[in-house]
Amino acid sequence: MAAKARIGVLGASGYTGGELVRLLLRHPRVEIALLTAERSAGKSMRDVFPQFSPFPRLPPLVGIAEIDWAAAALDVAFCALPHATTQKVVKELLARSPATKVIDLSADFRLRDVAAYARWYGHEHQAPELQKEAVYGLAEIHRRAIRNARLVANPGCYTTCAQLPLIPLIRQKAIDLAEIVIDAKSGMTGAGRAAKEAMLFSEVAEGFNAYGVGRHRHMAELDQEFSLAAGREVIVTFTPHLVPMNRGILSTIYVRGRRGRRAEDLHAILLKFYMKEPFVHVLPFGETPHTRHVRGSNMTFIGVASDRIPGRAILVSALDNLVKGAAGQAVQNMNLVMGWPETTGLEQIALFP
Amino acid sequence: MAAKARIGVLGASGYTGGELVRLLLRHPRVEIALLTAERSAGKSMRDVFPQFSPFPRLPPLVGIAEIDWAAAALDVAFCALPHATTQKVVKELLARSPATKVIDLSADFRLRDVAAYARWYGHEHQAPELQKEAVYGLAEIHRRAIRNARLVANPGCYTTCAQLPLIPLIRQKAIDLAEIVIDAKSGMTGAGRAAKEAMLFSEVAEGFNAYGVGRHRHMAELDQEFSLAAGREVIVTFTPHLVPMNRGILSTIYVRGRRGRRAEDLHAILLKFYMKEPFVHVLPFGETPHTRHVRGSNMTFIGVASDRIPGRAILVSALDNLVKGAAGQAVQNMNLVMGWPETTGLEQIALFP
Amino acid sequence: MAAKARIGVLGASGYTGGELVRLLLRHPRVEIALLTAERSAGKSMRDVFPQFSPFPRLPPLVGIAEIDWAAAALDVAFCALPHATTQKVVKELLARSPATKVIDLSADFRLRDVAAYARWYGHEHQAPELQKEAVYGLAEIHRRAIRNARLVANPGCYTTCAQLPLIPLIRQKAIDLAEIVIDAKSGMTGAGRAAKEAMLFSEVAEGFNAYGVGRHRHMAELDQEFSLAAGREVIVTFTPHLVPMNRGILSTIYVRGRRGRRAEDLHAILLKFYMKEPFVHVLPFGETPHTRHVRGSNMTFIGVASDRIPGRAILVSALDNLVKGAAGQAVQNMNLVMGWPETTGLEQIALFP
Amino acid sequence: MAAKARIGVLGASGYTGGELVRLLLRHPRVEIALLTAERSAGKSMRDVFPQFSPFPRLPPLVGIAEIDWAAAALDVAFCALPHATTQKVVKELLARSPATKVIDLSADFRLRDVAAYARWYGHEHQAPELQKEAVYGLAEIHRRAIRNARLVANPGCYTTCAQLPLIPLIRQKAIDLAEIVIDAKSGMTGAGRAAKEAMLFSEVAEGFNAYGVGRHRHMAELDQEFSLAAGREVIVTFTPHLVPMNRGILSTIYVRGRRGRRAEDLHAILLKFYMKEPFVHVLPFGETPHTRHVRGSNMTFIGVASDRIPGRAILVSALDNLVKGAAGQAVQNMNLVMGWPETTGLEQIALFP
Repeated sequence: MAAKARIGVLGASGYTGGELVRLLLRHPRVEIALLTAERSAGKSMRDVFPQFSPFPRLPPLVGIAEIDWAAAALDVAFCALPHATTQKVVKELLARSPATKVIDLSADFRLRDVAAYARWYGHEHQAPELQKEAVYGLAEIHRRAIRNARLVANPGCYTTCAQLPLIPLIRQKAIDLAEIVIDAKSGMTGAGRAAKEAMLFSEVAEGFNAYGVGRHRHMAELDQEFSLAAGREVIVTFTPHLVPMNRGILSTIYVRGRRGRRAEDLHAILLKFYMKEPFVHVLPFGETPHTRHVRGSNMTFIGVASDRIPGRAILVSALDNLVKGAAGQAVQNMNLVMGWPETTGLEQIALFP
Repeated sequence: MAAKARIGVLGASGYTGGELVRLLLRHPRVEIALLTAERSAGKSMRDVFPQFSPFPRLPPLVGIAEIDWAAAALDVAFCALPHATTQKVVKELLARSPATKVIDLSADFRLRDVAAYARWYGHEHQAPELQKEAVYGLAEIHRRAIRNARLVANPGCYTTCAQLPLIPLIRQKAIDLAEIVIDAKSGMTGAGRAAKEAMLFSEVAEGFNAYGVGRHRHMAELDQEFSLAAGREVIVTFTPHLVPMNRGILSTIYVRGRRGRRAEDLHAILLKFYMKEPFVHVLPFGETPHTRHVRGSNMTFIGVASDRIPGRAILVSALDNLVKGAAGQAVQNMNLVMGWPETTGLEQIALFP
Repeated sequence: MAAKARIGVLGASGYTGGELVRLLLRHPRVEIALLTAERSAGKSMRDVFPQFSPFPRLPPLVGIAEIDWAAAALDVAFCALPHATTQKVVKELLARSPATKVIDLSADFRLRDVAAYARWYGHEHQAPELQKEAVYGLAEIHRRAIRNARLVANPGCYTTCAQLPLIPLIRQKAIDLAEIVIDAKSGMTGAGRAAKEAMLFSEVAEGFNAYGVGRHRHMAELDQEFSLAAGREVIVTFTPHLVPMNRGILSTIYVRGRRGRRAEDLHAILLKFYMKEPFVHVLPFGETPHTRHVRGSNMTFIGVASDRIPGRAILVSALDNLVKGAAGQAVQNMNLVMGWPETTGLEQIALFP
Repeated sequence: MAAKARIGVLGASGYTGGELVRLLLRHPRVEIALLTAERSAGKSMRDVFPQFSPFPRLPPLVGIAEIDWAAAALDVAFCALPHATTQKVVKELLARSPATKVIDLSADFRLRDVAAYARWYGHEHQAPELQKEAVYGLAEIHRRAIRNARLVANPGCYTTCAQLPLIPLIRQKAIDLAEIVIDAKSGMTGAGRAAKEAMLFSEVAEGFNAYGVGRHRHMAELDQEFSLAAGREVIVTFTPHLVPMNRGILSTIYVRGRRGRRAEDLHAILLKFYMKEPFVHVLPFGETPHTRHVRGSNMTFIGVASDRIPGRAILVSALDNLVKGAAGQAVQNMNLVMGWPETTGLEQIALFP
């Protein structure tokens, strides 16, 4: 058997980083060679995630400034760093170690348009040439391009959950582009591991709320991908909500069929589009998914039902924001980039209950 | 001081019944004279709700068949019985004790139209004359009629949460009636206390899902009240979801302003409409509510925000499904029917966290 | 009717502060005259606790440094400040406004022994004369002394939950003092509102753990009060745990009866001791309490059951850590200090579910 | 490669059954040949556990009465049936298909003593000869006997969590046998999937309670195994509690060292005993585990800390009740019985958060 690929996880002390380590430890083609964390530099992985206590051979957490990228000789680097920091780190990493493949889980390389980036993020991109090089890593939609990429921009969790049901319908011109409403609900790990009052258990448990109503950065990514699929500008209504649970996103999407297409027709399009996909499962017509049935797995479940208003349909999609919405999709992208079977290391079945 | 009114709670062993007892025990104008429960007949209230253990003087639970309504001489009966049973019980109660005021918390008397009732519920109403007599008990909208009612049909929890933000806008012809989407999320007490597999803790916790997608009986009540407010037929899209929390409903409502009305205009209409209402609070423009901030109280919080799509607005409303969505609104209706100050016994402040 | 007492809540932006405001807003003898918060100084109460949005007349949050205590002319100050800060603030407050009654909810004045304080907290007390003046505010045990106090040290939540079942038994020499094991479980509000990673929703939900095993500051308070009740030194085993819920403490306490006393005898002692107490309810023998049945109320429920090992008994006590464990007990102490009926403003019934 | 072993899961519609299917679907040496369920007979696995929707080749659910055990030709049958039913089914299965290995997850074959069984369960055992044949399946303690067993009685979840930390200490006579207190806390899946009011989400969430205080059937199993380890009768104090979470058991165990043994000595014994065990991990001295760090994995974490009372120690153990406490341990036993590497199919890493 070939030597294992050397993998680095940059930002291993956050939830996405921890999830990457969970998946990579059981991935048969890789070895974890490097783990970084800034505030926890010098600690071991078990100090920040005690579930790894039985894995004493994991490398210690180091600060990024200490790393000699050329010497690290990573085959693949997963970058789970905060927005903006990412640009600088990836730029330097690729300058020093051009053969390393980078799967970036931040939002930094998702927008292809430099102007759109500056508009949504309020500052110029610091690595515009990489922004152009980056391939948007929604495997079911951009698989071919991903296979040849050196830098993959892993999609956001909310946006993956909205794109998978909508893009095939938009491409087929099956729905009215002016009336798409996406009502999205996310578990709390989507908010990250930084200590913020609003994310404390007692602020969150036994309650429910919307946030970022009317304007949210995820919209930029949706605009780009929906417009690309439609061949013209598409703007959707999108409202995120917080659910008192750890994992999971569920999107309830309201659409109107074009040219007489009924909900059943939309269902048929999705069923056909995803027939052979290992990580997207379209439920029988009229059934809608629960987040709990994809928890811990890389699956997305999609349901389609009729609205009682003629011509309207309701799509419901569910995924685990840390797996298909982040680390699992990143490993899927690594598999594509490395030419390995796409499902390698991603066969965990959902943990329910 | 006048003698206290004699109150009965029919169906005291369910969540709504328990919540009524919580409120009525501290209501200064009433005494709880009668409590019923069928499967728990013969038990005491502490057996079904141990929080009442320190209240040994509560009457024992009796079966409805044992009651002589005339002898019971109730001033007010709260009816928290299952659908369909209710019709028969209320009919007999009012036949034997015509002076008793009835606040019914089931769906049985909410629909004024006999035909609509038969269509949604699949059978003829068994007390059609009472169905006509009943007054729909959304106090903020039908206060005057409620004051003179003998039989009040207490609104549903989902429908209260949707009507309070929408009816003033519909009445003022401020929004497009063809494009109203109500995405509603409820805590688990809304599903009642009957033992069902789907409501077990382990089926519900750490997950989120939609249900009844496309068609749900609550729609009948919305159709009736929205059409009444509009003066013509209105049909809306409504999707309920289950949140892993005990109490609370949050509705995210997508509307389009008519004739150039912006979100700010809709906010101004609501602010003015509810200015003096004790139980509806309109938040500053752009703020949206959390269910946790109304938990245990009779308040509804309403927020209004702009969508980024010009002309569209997002309304968010939140209430406690067991209080303003059921028992609290029922007490509010009792206060109106009895001519007492409307807030009597309803001044509890939300319990957060 | 007499003028209302002027009340200040120092530290109003934390959970205990918010709970005090909830209770005091409905207390018929008081008006809230002053609210302090340091980081949120200049904001309104609704900014830190949106449930108070319908109460626009609450005073704004001010920093403590800005206050002229003499001019504030508070009748009662509730002090819900962090440990150590408290000593300095209370010292200055009482120096400037000696007639103000202080109910302190921190640990600063709970230990009577200067040396014990220094040993457990690692520094000298900064107001040792007040430490001696302070009366330990467990009303059911020290009621008479509290009535005459100027400075009341409100007990901790864990310790209240352990003392109420144990002190009557210790006083009566009914249990073996060498073998008391207290296994305590608390909801998350007990950890306060400061933003700490370990208290994030996703660190806490769907899990359970012990902490501070073997040594915890609450033990100092238990040592003091149990030794006082016993007339000799008592040291107990105490282990705290965190439950993924907002409110509630449950203590499971393992004891051995002395001189042939069986569990039934211990139950009889507690039943008699608490017969007339409004806020302690002893359940029938063999029944044990749930935290959910005291949630939001000032009640403590106590149960006693036999162990199968002869001579051993298991006590279980439950209370709401923010009410009887903090703000409710503080209001109870205010009522005693002010000579008002002890239950005034504390009659909320538990919110279940 | 050899043909895969044919596996049956009896009782596949409960939580333990679902967990077995999750693990077996990814076990490289087996194929799932038979799934049974009584009320759901005729349905497919996806109807009762939608997470298996992407696995259409799972066999349909059949009723046990329909099965010809000889024809089924199972290599291994996992029996996840209710107590008492189990005895009859296993008896018939082994009569018709004597070569099938049975891993029983009920309590039916755990007690070796016929009289003890009758005393705790209130009726005579219906397959006493099998009761004697059965081997108690705690792999870390009885590995050798399990390898040669035809019928393995998989231990209970509570008892596994208590035995793993205690048995090495009891065997080494390191702790006082008269003073062992086990305070155990379990997630809700331990209560099974039957629809009971007490297990509804709203009865459980936001609360905590003890149950079965003083007497619980799990004690019979503890008595047997602890007495076996000690070589004389041992009776312990054991109190179970319910935690509002899906998975996990944490046991806090209070012990006294014998002959001067300190907590550190107990830790050293456990560390040595479990040094090479793949599924038991002893944490560094003074650290104690969280249930969340073993969720979904077959690991048990054990911590040891000193009590402040000299000579006493506190042990804390944590496992996932559905994995090491049920299905995972059953697969571990299958691996032993079949002569496969013990960790096969059990390498999932804990899912946190």
